[in-house]
Amino acid sequence: MQQFLLYSPEVAAARAAGKAIVALESTIISHGMPYPQNVQMAREVEQIIRDAGAVPATIAIMDGKICIGLNEQQLELLGTSPDAMKVSRRDLPFVLAQRKLGATTVAATMICAELAGISVFVTGGIGGVHRGAETSFDISADLQELAHTSVAVVCAGVKSILDIGLTLEYLETYGVPVVSVGQRGFPAFFTRESGFNADFQLDTPAEQAAFIHTKWQLGLKGGVVVSNPVPAAEAMPKAEIDAITEQALQEADTQGITGKQVTPFLLSRIKQLTDGRSLATNIALVKNNARCGAALALAMHAHQN
Amino acid sequence: MQQFLLYSPEVAAARAAGKAIVALESTIISHGMPYPQNVQMAREVEQIIRDAGAVPATIAIMDGKICIGLNEQQLELLGTSPDAMKVSRRDLPFVLAQRKLGATTVAATMICAELAGISVFVTGGIGGVHRGAETSFDISADLQELAHTSVAVVCAGVKSILDIGLTLEYLETYGVPVVSVGQRGFPAFFTRESGFNADFQLDTPAEQAAFIHTKWQLGLKGGVVVSNPVPAAEAMPKAEIDAITEQALQEADTQGITGKQVTPFLLSRIKQLTDGRSLATNIALVKNNARCGAALALAMHAHQN
Amino acid sequence: MQQFLLYSPEVAAARAAGKAIVALESTIISHGMPYPQNVQMAREVEQIIRDAGAVPATIAIMDGKICIGLNEQQLELLGTSPDAMKVSRRDLPFVLAQRKLGATTVAATMICAELAGISVFVTGGIGGVHRGAETSFDISADLQELAHTSVAVVCAGVKSILDIGLTLEYLETYGVPVVSVGQRGFPAFFTRESGFNADFQLDTPAEQAAFIHTKWQLGLKGGVVVSNPVPAAEAMPKAEIDAITEQALQEADTQGITGKQVTPFLLSRIKQLTDGRSLATNIALVKNNARCGAALALAMHAHQN
Ligand SMILES: [Mn+2]
Ligand SMILES: [Mn+2]
Ligand SMILES: [Mn+2]
Repeated sequence: MQQFLLYSPEVAAARAAGKAIVALESTIISHGMPYPQNVQMAREVEQIIRDAGAVPATIAIMDGKICIGLNEQQLELLGTSPDAMKVSRRDLPFVLAQRKLGATTVAATMICAELAGISVFVTGGIGGVHRGAETSFDISADLQELAHTSVAVVCAGVKSILDIGLTLEYLETYGVPVVSVGQRGFPAFFTRESGFNADFQLDTPAEQAAFIHTKWQLGLKGGVVVSNPVPAAEAMPKAEIDAITEQALQEADTQGITGKQVTPFLLSRIKQLTDGRSLATNIALVKNNARCGAALALAMHAHQN
Repeated sequence: MQQFLLYSPEVAAARAAGKAIVALESTIISHGMPYPQNVQMAREVEQIIRDAGAVPATIAIMDGKICIGLNEQQLELLGTSPDAMKVSRRDLPFVLAQRKLGATTVAATMICAELAGISVFVTGGIGGVHRGAETSFDISADLQELAHTSVAVVCAGVKSILDIGLTLEYLETYGVPVVSVGQRGFPAFFTRESGFNADFQLDTPAEQAAFIHTKWQLGLKGGVVVSNPVPAAEAMPKAEIDAITEQALQEADTQGITGKQVTPFLLSRIKQLTDGRSLATNIALVKNNARCGAALALAMHAHQN
Repeated sequence: MQQFLLYSPEVAAARAAGKAIVALESTIISHGMPYPQNVQMAREVEQIIRDAGAVPATIAIMDGKICIGLNEQQLELLGTSPDAMKVSRRDLPFVLAQRKLGATTVAATMICAELAGISVFVTGGIGGVHRGAETSFDISADLQELAHTSVAVVCAGVKSILDIGLTLEYLETYGVPVVSVGQRGFPAFFTRESGFNADFQLDTPAEQAAFIHTKWQLGLKGGVVVSNPVPAAEAMPKAEIDAITEQALQEADTQGITGKQVTPFLLSRIKQLTDGRSLATNIALVKNNARCGAALALAMHAHQN
């Protein structure tokens, strides 16, 4: 499988020097934010990780290779290509075999990070159980990846357009630990509290790393959700985002939007209804996660060496 | 585990000569069609595979062994024994340890094919999420096998007595790729279209093989659904089969048929209500899949050598 | 992973002498019964296993170690500590890394038994799909453990406060075999019959061991449910326990008890409403399972040597 991996010079040097590496996904660049904020955010997040003493590895699929680490032009390409494909587990062999341009979701980034020996991955929020999944069975492949693939995923929780309670039940059934940083509550992406608790509160990178390291040493494969709430100063007011989410859900219902169309519709409406403030919060939480993830990668690294 | 495998002389010779082999299931013989059409169909399907340059390996459990390749008498026995047991994953150790006669479902055939090193398996249709599974939790073990066992399953989609939409959602959650041949639409067994799309359209055996080979080279274990629509000339009219399915579902409801009894009742009523035309379509689609699977096995073989 | 395992002198000697070992869980001691009945029951169950010629290994987490076999003081500690943590798969790395006191559930005991090379585990009842899981997604992690971890779990079935039918459907989807001992019916913990059948009736330890051994020899990982009905003399009348369960469910509803609070409420109400007779039945069925499990471990042992 190593023949599919192509390391950037920066990441190759980090591997040779035995430095801590942090994986980053790319659908947030291609599908999650408008240009040029997406590329600017990607660069700044990478720099935050460098400043913290670790090495960033943004992951994407190009020319039949899994690129571990992207250069300026590759980030630009991802940020501007309208036809970059959103790649989950089932899509990985397709984009590789057909040499298409692919941006990796949480699930696919976990797979590629594990292949590349990277144990910490920073993203905005993970996928989950969709509202209405009791009858639609619409459950993100990210959750099965967390059940099986051994990567720690630093995120700001799960967006409240999803069903957070059902997502936590699903993770419990599959034995995926959900850790919270600095609080016991499980955050809800735009806000610090979801009304649900994480399984464990582990505040320091050393505690988080000891937990994760112990899990894998036991032979318990699979991911760990490290949920890191958005900083209070940049969080959206819970009442406001809840009301906007409710409004967007009702609009989807009135306009007859169903199935696969619901999530993109909700995300787009929330962006409009918040006058772009949701985008600022999104960027802030990703940067905050980058700081958390870099510190965790350095702490994990101490265990591995 | 190799001690359980018994290869027929034809399959043993094919293995020694390094030929492409195609697995075939046996519940279609024991439980899927009446005698003597079942045995005749089995023979003709095997011959189609030989004519295409590959070697057929019909799989069944006999005398404490997993038989990979059956002779004339063994096919006859399976086609006429009223007590052949339908064997899924959970049943395999039982029929083997108790030396019973077992016909393998899609799930068990995948397991046995993988044990025997066979990567392509031809069947009629796969199991799926049953209508009403939101409350009954009745979901075929075939889907979990597709999630974990590395065999490409050539089929004509999923029978419309199942919930095709929920089946595709379930496969997406588990990262199982669904490929369609010659069209983007996912077929519905008796008809060419289900109203849902496959994930990818891959028309040539070379493209299909490159996709499957890439998946497994990446270390992404699990099956691939290669859905091959029934030829137009032999498909049933969609309106007719939908109406008949609806009628059968209502009869089941009126007659108080529930749980495990529903599927056999529906399949039997559909056969009656179509005056046996559903059987002709069933045989036609299996033969069509045999052609597709043999070509795929030859193309896969080129990758492996 | 072996660095986490700490064998008691009795279990270490059994391993050195190549004796049959039976794993026992510890949440039944810490959370399942009041003191001192819990510790007394634990001692008696261990003695039943010794009397049958096997060696008991009660499992718990203490001081950063997975203890395989507990001494008198450790049993006493578990039976009296109000802060012993209930440990499932997701919790194992937490209690180990944080050096807390942990009592293992069915899921965690299976993991620890497999790590310690113990293939038979005796408990009271397994977790399952909760009533209302169609909308709550509340499904015990025990079921996923049965799908993946190769340990035979001797139990008296599933408590009727759970949804037994959905639990059996779930196990079928995941290919987990459900065996019954002495009858075809699947038992319901306090009673001998649930109204559902097991997949197979295997009455003798030799038959059970041959089945389990064959499963694992085939490379089919995962557990086997060996369901052993409570002895008739000690079973609760089905009508009575059903009525009491119904009453407790209605009380939970009236009192607005929901989510995670439901199960502890039901179990506590059932104990009250049966005037403690449910506790006597619970102890009787665990002892009965210890006899069954010891015989199975001896029979499995014959296969392994
Ligand atoms: Mn989805
Ligand atoms: Mn079923
Ligand atoms: Mn639960």
